[in-house]
Amino acid sequence: MNGWSKRLVRLLPVNHHGLETDLYELTMAAAYFDNKESFEATFELFVRNYPKNRSYLVAAGLEQAINYLTQLRFTEPEITFLKEHPNFRNASNAFFQYLSNFKFTGELWALPEGTIFFRTEPIIRVTAPIIEAQIAETYLLSVINYETLIATKASRIVRSAREKGVVEFGSRRAHGPEAALLAARASYIGGCIGTSNVLAGYLYNIPTYGTMAHSFIMSYDSEEEAFEKFCRVIPEPAFLVDTYDSIEGIKKVIAIGQTPNMIRLDSGNRLKLSREARKMLDRAGFKETRIFVSGDLNEYILNDLTSKNAPIDFFGVGTELVTSRDDPALPGIYKLVSLTRDGKDVYRAKTSEGKMTLPGPKQIYRKFNLKKQIREDILALQDERIPPGARPLLLKVLENGSLVKELPEIDEIREFAKQELKALPSRFLRLRGSEEPPLKLSAKLQRVARSMWSKRGARSRG
Amino acid sequence: MNGWSKRLVRLLPVNHHGLETDLYELTMAAAYFDNKESFEATFELFVRNYPKNRSYLVAAGLEQAINYLTQLRFTEPEITFLKEHPNFRNASNAFFQYLSNFKFTGELWALPEGTIFFRTEPIIRVTAPIIEAQIAETYLLSVINYETLIATKASRIVRSAREKGVVEFGSRRAHGPEAALLAARASYIGGCIGTSNVLAGYLYNIPTYGTMAHSFIMSYDSEEEAFEKFCRVIPEPAFLVDTYDSIEGIKKVIAIGQTPNMIRLDSGNRLKLSREARKMLDRAGFKETRIFVSGDLNEYILNDLTSKNAPIDFFGVGTELVTSRDDPALPGIYKLVSLTRDGKDVYRAKTSEGKMTLPGPKQIYRKFNLKKQIREDILALQDERIPPGARPLLLKVLENGSLVKELPEIDEIREFAKQELKALPSRFLRLRGSEEPPLKLSAKLQRVARSMWSKRGARSRG
Repeated sequence: MNGWSKRLVRLLPVNHHGLETDLYELTMAAAYFDNKESFEATFELFVRNYPKNRSYLVAAGLEQAINYLTQLRFTEPEITFLKEHPNFRNASNAFFQYLSNFKFTGELWALPEGTIFFRTEPIIRVTAPIIEAQIAETYLLSVINYETLIATKASRIVRSAREKGVVEFGSRRAHGPEAALLAARASYIGGCIGTSNVLAGYLYNIPTYGTMAHSFIMSYDSEEEAFEKFCRVIPEPAFLVDTYDSIEGIKKVIAIGQTPNMIRLDSGNRLKLSREARKMLDRAGFKETRIFVSGDLNEYILNDLTSKNAPIDFFGVGTELVTSRDDPALPGIYKLVSLTRDGKDVYRAKTSEGKMTLPGPKQIYRKFNLKKQIREDILALQDERIPPGARPLLLKVLENGSLVKELPEIDEIREFAKQELKALPSRFLRLRGSEEPPLKLSAKLQRVARSMWSKRGARSRG
Repeated sequence: MNGWSKRLVRLLPVNHHGLETDLYELTMAAAYFDNKESFEATFELFVRNYPKNRSYLVAAGLEQAINYLTQLRFTEPEITFLKEHPNFRNASNAFFQYLSNFKFTGELWALPEGTIFFRTEPIIRVTAPIIEAQIAETYLLSVINYETLIATKASRIVRSAREKGVVEFGSRRAHGPEAALLAARASYIGGCIGTSNVLAGYLYNIPTYGTMAHSFIMSYDSEEEAFEKFCRVIPEPAFLVDTYDSIEGIKKVIAIGQTPNMIRLDSGNRLKLSREARKMLDRAGFKETRIFVSGDLNEYILNDLTSKNAPIDFFGVGTELVTSRDDPALPGIYKLVSLTRDGKDVYRAKTSEGKMTLPGPKQIYRKFNLKKQIREDILALQDERIPPGARPLLLKVLENGSLVKELPEIDEIREFAKQELKALPSRFLRLRGSEEPPLKLSAKLQRVARSMWSKRGARSRG
């Protein structure tokens, strides 16, 4: 991932409002400000537990996180809203003045998008004056949780499709129009060949696919008429054949007499129908006509179809992909790991039962075996010596609130994710069950963590 | 719902791009346009099957749908993008000219937000020149599917909380920042008392809640110091007591000596801890201190806690609510039901196996019993006679692309949903299982549908 290419950061079609956060981030900001605290804080975003049946994750959402951090501002109407909010009735005018000049000035370290990683490993690390790092929490979690969830789901689906192309088709079932865009982007990173979402194509430079819906067929008196009228205008369409009866529909496509580019099956028994369709097309001499299948597909169904050698060339996957339906939330959390007070670094950890966290700013070092596969990751404190032969995974992205390297193009991210997956031992790629992460804590990190966890309510100084 | 109040339509912080749709909507548009078709079409959006364990739905998302339809435009860069797309290489210049002047000019009928409805019943009905109605499909589905999914989930959660207030807390796990906003809005419609999302408060006029996170406590050397500093600035805070140990945390809140407004428990056994906390607070004389509980809650857990009379005053519900975790997709579909060609109305239906649809533009008529509870709904063709004593549920919202009535305030919608729920017989309110909808098809609709379904591939003329 040395090739962070030269281009401008692409924008989400959303203005970055300071208010796009949880209220408690702002009440804490007021409390810190009016208590004149000048803490510098480090937060890490990580996943404590995998979603169901996952043994690895694909990092995504960093570009949106960076857009947010570099653009985050408070407008005057937003500040007026806060002034009138009962929680801020004791806050000083200086605090509101501070908000009106607000700008993120901190440092961001992150896994490049497309990185394969494991639970417990930080995806991003933010170091900034505590108010800045705190206000950003909600937005950072929402984009990184969601895009990582979907890139991971896409990775599973694409693998189950084996060599066949998978198109993301789920905008209508995504959690609103912006989720549809983010899902298209994350799915492409995870290995899909494109999306049905045109705006995602436009904003993110992702290939877009799609031809006709059932309603088009239903608008004409016969399927023949619909197919014929469509071909007059749209080159190389995928003929949707199941509006009334799939087999009859295929006969009508064949009757057109010219090699059809593609047919699409959207209902019924896809294994049986694809085999029947292939036979009918081959018999008619249309060996090049490809078969596209869609409708309530997921990695488990795709795996079943491909393992039975169903003659399918492309898959369209919607709802199951964009909602990560079998487990629709990545439980990423954003935790304080260190604080600089009066010039001293102090490590921090949560010690409450079942919710303990690892103290201190950390780095992940990855070691590979001779086959270039992941041997192990070592989670260490950032100031430890680099283990020999290991690659550090977290890279510095923002310094003083500004980009230190240009971000990669989406195709580079997608290719990087593909290469990353090749380095993953096959036991992590199973569709069911969950594998222990190949992760060790450094001796120093273990020592510091144990000492903090053993003194509940106390804290160790790093 | 006669009180559609006077105010401007509130905007989502998103510009309505014409490209915010699936590619096939636009290829069909080109095919219709260049074939010089002047069909007027009617589409209905409905749900074929409920999400798991649901027996009713709460309509939401109409305000966003209306904002979209009234603002939908294509910018010049968007049109340039389409001109360069391979699918449009045969499309005429006149088509691109048409897009640059595009405006939705049709009619919209809809269930007012907050309406309780059942599967098979149309949530909205769009009548417009077919290209306009078709392009809108993807966006309409995504906002109505998602907000209805969440309003319904919130309704279940709020009911399980009995008289206790539920705050929506899930922004960080929503499917991106816009999903967080839509979830906050839909949750409020479904009965939550507010949200943690400040922008949702600002944009939609929803009460916002929140005080401190664990990181605030961890920034100080002791919980006492953190509590004390926080109180200096923020009035009536909820003290978060579980950073290190919940019981020790409660002791420290009590030690402050002034009646605390509220404590928050975010981990551990909530039933046991809330009972212990209540005892400790009461013993200290703080009978007015309220207990707020959060952390991986859902309707099933809430029902368990409230049925055991856990002394909890407020619940914060996040991930489970904003992702509708037990079933994260509402499978709404948008189907062509009728077409006007050469001045004649022609009904349309899909007849493919397992995906049959009901033909013709429809209206829902609701009948009530003497206790003012729903007796039955009758789904009839729109041009049928109104059954005596029945209330038509779909109302006209847009005519010639413009609002015909002002939209209600969010508090009116929320109150309406609450009244609607009172009219729902208790068998529909169970948390588990799925009840048959109290729905009958009119004799005429049955006749027309049967005749179309029996002739596969044929169509009836209405």
